[in-house]
Amino acid sequence: MGKGRVEAFTDGVVAIIITIMVLWLKVPHGEDFSALLPLWPIFFSYVLSFINVGIYWNNLHNMFHTVQRVDGRVLWANLNLLFWLSLMPATTAFMGENHFAPVPVAVYGIDLVLCAVAYTFLATKALGNDRKGKISVALYAAAVPLAFVNQWIGVAIFVLVAAVWFVPDTRFSRVLEK
Amino acid sequence: MGKGRVEAFTDGVVAIIITIMVLWLKVPHGEDFSALLPLWPIFFSYVLSFINVGIYWNNLHNMFHTVQRVDGRVLWANLNLLFWLSLMPATTAFMGENHFAPVPVAVYGIDLVLCAVAYTFLATKALGNDRKGKISVALYAAAVPLAFVNQWIGVAIFVLVAAVWFVPDTRFSRVLEK
Amino acid sequence: MGKGRVEAFTDGVVAIIITIMVLWLKVPHGEDFSALLPLWPIFFSYVLSFINVGIYWNNLHNMFHTVQRVDGRVLWANLNLLFWLSLMPATTAFMGENHFAPVPVAVYGIDLVLCAVAYTFLATKALGNDRKGKISVALYAAAVPLAFVNQWIGVAIFVLVAAVWFVPDTRFSRVLEK
Amino acid sequence: MGKGRVEAFTDGVVAIIITIMVLWLKVPHGEDFSALLPLWPIFFSYVLSFINVGIYWNNLHNMFHTVQRVDGRVLWANLNLLFWLSLMPATTAFMGENHFAPVPVAVYGIDLVLCAVAYTFLATKALGNDRKGKISVALYAAAVPLAFVNQWIGVAIFVLVAAVWFVPDTRFSRVLEK
Repeated sequence: MGKGRVEAFTDGVVAIIITIMVLWLKVPHGEDFSALLPLWPIFFSYVLSFINVGIYWNNLHNMFHTVQRVDGRVLWANLNLLFWLSLMPATTAFMGENHFAPVPVAVYGIDLVLCAVAYTFLATKALGNDRKGKISVALYAAAVPLAFVNQWIGVAIFVLVAAVWFVPDTRFSRVLEK
Repeated sequence: MGKGRVEAFTDGVVAIIITIMVLWLKVPHGEDFSALLPLWPIFFSYVLSFINVGIYWNNLHNMFHTVQRVDGRVLWANLNLLFWLSLMPATTAFMGENHFAPVPVAVYGIDLVLCAVAYTFLATKALGNDRKGKISVALYAAAVPLAFVNQWIGVAIFVLVAAVWFVPDTRFSRVLEK
Repeated sequence: MGKGRVEAFTDGVVAIIITIMVLWLKVPHGEDFSALLPLWPIFFSYVLSFINVGIYWNNLHNMFHTVQRVDGRVLWANLNLLFWLSLMPATTAFMGENHFAPVPVAVYGIDLVLCAVAYTFLATKALGNDRKGKISVALYAAAVPLAFVNQWIGVAIFVLVAAVWFVPDTRFSRVLEK
Repeated sequence: MGKGRVEAFTDGVVAIIITIMVLWLKVPHGEDFSALLPLWPIFFSYVLSFINVGIYWNNLHNMFHTVQRVDGRVLWANLNLLFWLSLMPATTAFMGENHFAPVPVAVYGIDLVLCAVAYTFLATKALGNDRKGKISVALYAAAVPLAFVNQWIGVAIFVLVAAVWFVPDTRFSRVLEK
């Protein structure tokens, strides 16, 4: 089974996920800047999720680049990841609309845990190993109970893990060019 | 007529169908876990439909892989299937929001019957025969009246047919590798 | 400029248009079949538009197949067609939600006129001539005032033009195979 | 890293952005033409954004055509542009629903500034220079304060910059053919 169509389908689903999140940015009816202010939690959670989904797309891009062929198991492991990613618009809105209250932050964290577990499972099926993925799972899993101590610890972990994936990605390219 | 663009269009439509279903997962405004509890029927019907649409995408993937060329009739038979699949977000929400009441379960079953009939028709046009598809049509058709005896019989049949398609798909790959 | 990406972008936009129309099929909250009955006008207008958009996709598929290269003018003529097609979900819902009242039928007809004009313009830019397109423009343009005599004349013309495009398409394939 | 999948993903996101804007065109429930009249500001802002997003797609198309390879930095610079473009459906609706009041026009202008800055940044990363992009940034940035003098000055600048990108694009093709 060629990998081209799995990539195309994955790109399509991820493109839709990353874009429909904006539908939850409800348009304010007031005419001045103060009408936009209450949108900041939704906007901030949208930015966070946009970066997270962007990182997943980037990783899937690199993973399928190294994989030669996909079989039924890889295909379903990939659909499993897409399922948990597809919940991200809903969990993002849940977190943003409730102004980062502990439970919504924990629910968002649980979704990230399940995405990371699904990604690690897929990477193991497709590549054989995925150490960075396992560390991410552990960090996200820690964020869930910590959100009840203080929700901003949870949010800080989400930002931290995103940075861990984002920074080397761009640094790596810079090194390669030298 | 090349099959590449038909595949690409089909992938696009299926990717959108599988993703926009999440828009019906209305974000709860409560801040604790109990606010999520009433979402379980919608969530469960979403999981079921995600797997069903995933199975269809998988089958279409394999079908177009074996087909060499498509003509106008295959193209419209494919659009016919996409039409009934495109109703799945609405029938899924109808079933979930009414907590698996008999009529919504039957309506969901009718949509599955029509998807399965359309798929069998397409497979016959494109490949020549489709025995597994015909059995699925019969099972789904039985689920519709049985939903009025007890709706959970209907739901059980939906899960059963999904399993019939899902399990061999992954087993098949495992055998191939040995 | 290669035509591949224009095709891919066009397929993406058309796939989204054809699929998001289902979002206007509001899920009824009643639990029995009678709750579905009021949906028939929206459902019927959805079926009509699904076929219309399917025909456009089919025609664009065949047109780009014969075209070798696209330039900036073809690209914008194509975007012009996509613009009027992108209004179809809204005009479809307007016609369905108002139960095929004369003005909504006329508005739907105006959108079809503008789609047909845009298609004819694109076909002329890309291929040189388009007689069938010009006849469709004339028929749709006649449907707009006739909708105020009786809206079902307008609807009948929409069905007729769809049939004119749909039937030869499948017949043509059958002849080719013989 | 091949550029094919980045192009496909970009096309997918842009196709979704350009199409979901129509979801904000709320369907009027009245049955006559006067029911459509209040939609003109939303319709006009939709037309403007459709052309703007169309221009961006066109530019990205041409840019990736000349680029040979993409690295992590280009990929994230591209995602940065897609982020600001993804806000356009929301800022378009904000401007349209508030009938081009000064603040919404300024907010729409800020989004255009950030899109233009992101595009210029991407073009510099991918191609080396982008003079036309920098002029657009300056014009959009001027439109933001001028919207508070008179909002139609802001709108006029949006139309002007769109024309500056749109016109040569089609003229260029005509010259090439001669």
